[in-house]
Amino acid sequence: MKAYLTRRYHFSASHRLNNDAFSAEKNRVVYGKCNNPHGHGHNYVAEVTLCGEVDPATGMVCNLADLDMFARTNLLDAFDHMNLNTLKCFANLVPTTENLTIEIFRRFQSGFSHAHLERVRVEETGNNSFEYAG
Amino acid sequence: MKAYLTRRYHFSASHRLNNDAFSAEKNRVVYGKCNNPHGHGHNYVAEVTLCGEVDPATGMVCNLADLDMFARTNLLDAFDHMNLNTLKCFANLVPTTENLTIEIFRRFQSGFSHAHLERVRVEETGNNSFEYAG
Amino acid sequence: MKAYLTRRYHFSASHRLNNDAFSAEKNRVVYGKCNNPHGHGHNYVAEVTLCGEVDPATGMVCNLADLDMFARTNLLDAFDHMNLNTLKCFANLVPTTENLTIEIFRRFQSGFSHAHLERVRVEETGNNSFEYAG
Amino acid sequence: MKAYLTRRYHFSASHRLNNDAFSAEKNRVVYGKCNNPHGHGHNYVAEVTLCGEVDPATGMVCNLADLDMFARTNLLDAFDHMNLNTLKCFANLVPTTENLTIEIFRRFQSGFSHAHLERVRVEETGNNSFEYAG
Amino acid sequence: MKAYLTRRYHFSASHRLNNDAFSAEKNRVVYGKCNNPHGHGHNYVAEVTLCGEVDPATGMVCNLADLDMFARTNLLDAFDHMNLNTLKCFANLVPTTENLTIEIFRRFQSGFSHAHLERVRVEETGNNSFEYAG
Amino acid sequence: MKAYLTRRYHFSASHRLNNDAFSAEKNRVVYGKCNNPHGHGHNYVAEVTLCGEVDPATGMVCNLADLDMFARTNLLDAFDHMNLNTLKCFANLVPTTENLTIEIFRRFQSGFSHAHLERVRVEETGNNSFEYAG
Repeated sequence: MKAYLTRRYHFSASHRLNNDAFSAEKNRVVYGKCNNPHGHGHNYVAEVTLCGEVDPATGMVCNLADLDMFARTNLLDAFDHMNLNTLKCFANLVPTTENLTIEIFRRFQSGFSHAHLERVRVEETGNNSFEYAG
Repeated sequence: MKAYLTRRYHFSASHRLNNDAFSAEKNRVVYGKCNNPHGHGHNYVAEVTLCGEVDPATGMVCNLADLDMFARTNLLDAFDHMNLNTLKCFANLVPTTENLTIEIFRRFQSGFSHAHLERVRVEETGNNSFEYAG
Repeated sequence: MKAYLTRRYHFSASHRLNNDAFSAEKNRVVYGKCNNPHGHGHNYVAEVTLCGEVDPATGMVCNLADLDMFARTNLLDAFDHMNLNTLKCFANLVPTTENLTIEIFRRFQSGFSHAHLERVRVEETGNNSFEYAG
Repeated sequence: MKAYLTRRYHFSASHRLNNDAFSAEKNRVVYGKCNNPHGHGHNYVAEVTLCGEVDPATGMVCNLADLDMFARTNLLDAFDHMNLNTLKCFANLVPTTENLTIEIFRRFQSGFSHAHLERVRVEETGNNSFEYAG
Repeated sequence: MKAYLTRRYHFSASHRLNNDAFSAEKNRVVYGKCNNPHGHGHNYVAEVTLCGEVDPATGMVCNLADLDMFARTNLLDAFDHMNLNTLKCFANLVPTTENLTIEIFRRFQSGFSHAHLERVRVEETGNNSFEYAG
Repeated sequence: MKAYLTRRYHFSASHRLNNDAFSAEKNRVVYGKCNNPHGHGHNYVAEVTLCGEVDPATGMVCNLADLDMFARTNLLDAFDHMNLNTLKCFANLVPTTENLTIEIFRRFQSGFSHAHLERVRVEETGNNSFEYAG
């Protein structure tokens, strides 16, 4: 019996959307007010969905304590109260929420082995969200 | 790297559920209080999900400005603050939220070409929602 | 020990904002798209706040079962799935949410005697609300 | 035209996570504070998703009145304001939300015949949810 | 410049509403399904509102770190994942949410001295809340 | 009949909490991770509450179109997608949400004359909010 477990993590960060390879004018056209020079920020919500057999002894797909410990180190400590543009993973990548979602997916996929990572979904605001499933 | 982008649009509209081919009695049985003669209304939320490659230059599946411009004309101007029963697209169709969801899907599918339309989901209330994926 | 109890009730209704004493042009200017001829609707939330001593025996300000029974008859049966413009209480009154809030306050104030009515707050949408305290 | 209908049901219940086959120590390690001896509780939300053709005459996948009647008997009367550990279905099964989700799925799958059951999703808190699709 | 700061804390607990001084029949009448013998539970939200001058140097009414540290010990450790009926403070008091709200108010009022406690509000469910201001 | 109208506005901005008059060490102690050097951000919600007589002709406390026009210029254009630290009003003031709330109150109080400004409340996250009433 394969079930899905989804857990939501909250973090606040800032970013500025700008591609150095574009002209200033093109950056303004492409990114609009997200290109404002000093950046802006969001309360992001990352939803991590795992999939696996429900263990008949524990009744769990995965222990949330293990998931939370991994997310503490690899998600919250990495992104909470940060300026995304200054992070190593966005040194050569525009920190759009699409790219942030993919980056979070990669971190969980390569390091969290207690259950299968199904997808990551990130809400940038209550009206915008992005999802990546590998 | 294929990612999904979901954007929520809010509009308020009224409708009355009634099929002219049914008797008054059958309409009351089928639609209950949704058949009340003068109609009622909802704050609808339409979630549009697009799918596509993340452009390596922009970091985007699709520019939200393009999506918003299309939604302004084809979704909000068409349905916001309207009585659904008086609209051309519901002249011969009961304006249930199932049919509204399908109608919105068709409008995006036939006219929005900046990314692939994956699905449309419409919330009628916080507890009822409907989804159509073609 | 005086405490406050707040309970939320949900109902869906339609309305059209129009004052017959105004010209068609003035109605359009004053009410904008809320003046659209066939009406539109909302998922309203009415929050009723009562105040009173916490009964030392029951630990309650007021039994929610009594409040719900009153609200069933005087709020939900009266307004849910209705067109507000067709109701007797709005025969000579524009059914703005301000007026709806006052009407709900009056109904609770005159008929609900199990605790003191403190205020009524009505959400028209997630972003608009109105409050009346007598 | 196959569409999906999702309806949310709310209920409050308590549970304690403990496997009698484990030692007290192992139960504490596996379940953490969810193993606290006297139990704790949640406001659960069960989302039931049905799938089916939209009936051209009614414009509906399934009449919500039928779904609500089934849910009243098989979901709300069974679980609302209950201690999950005392229920027959959890006599030999730890009442994790994974197992609760599967139990709700089984009840709808075996008894609700007005439309195809697609999946059941249960929110334990705003940040934890579980999904089962058979 | 006096401002108000409100912070929300989340905890999950169970309770059973029953007054030993009432007959079993009276308890059923007064508390309805909240009197079910084995208890039930909720995801409670406690909103603590403080009031004070905004410190011109820090720009704060009160350091949230101090508030969180107090709430960790006096609110979350005390009530999270607990059965309220088994707690000392409810030994002779029915654990209604009115009484829980007053209890939380007293704990903050007597121990938290970094700013003036204005009120405590507790949500039992999304539709029920209680408030106490001393 | 005096009623209250509350309208919510959403904007995204970044800030860094730091007082130049404090040592680096003191800033870290006072502001914690909100002092991270490159800033972070939030999806802010500003709730503006007006109070006034309900106009018997229009049924309104204030025309929302007037309020929205004022908020567009004085709130959203000023703060949305901005870095608060770079704004003139925070040149000598730490951009805590307390100070932001007071700043928004002042702008509405000095310029919006269609109804009496009662209070401004700003949500920094879903769990933190601040309120100022003059």
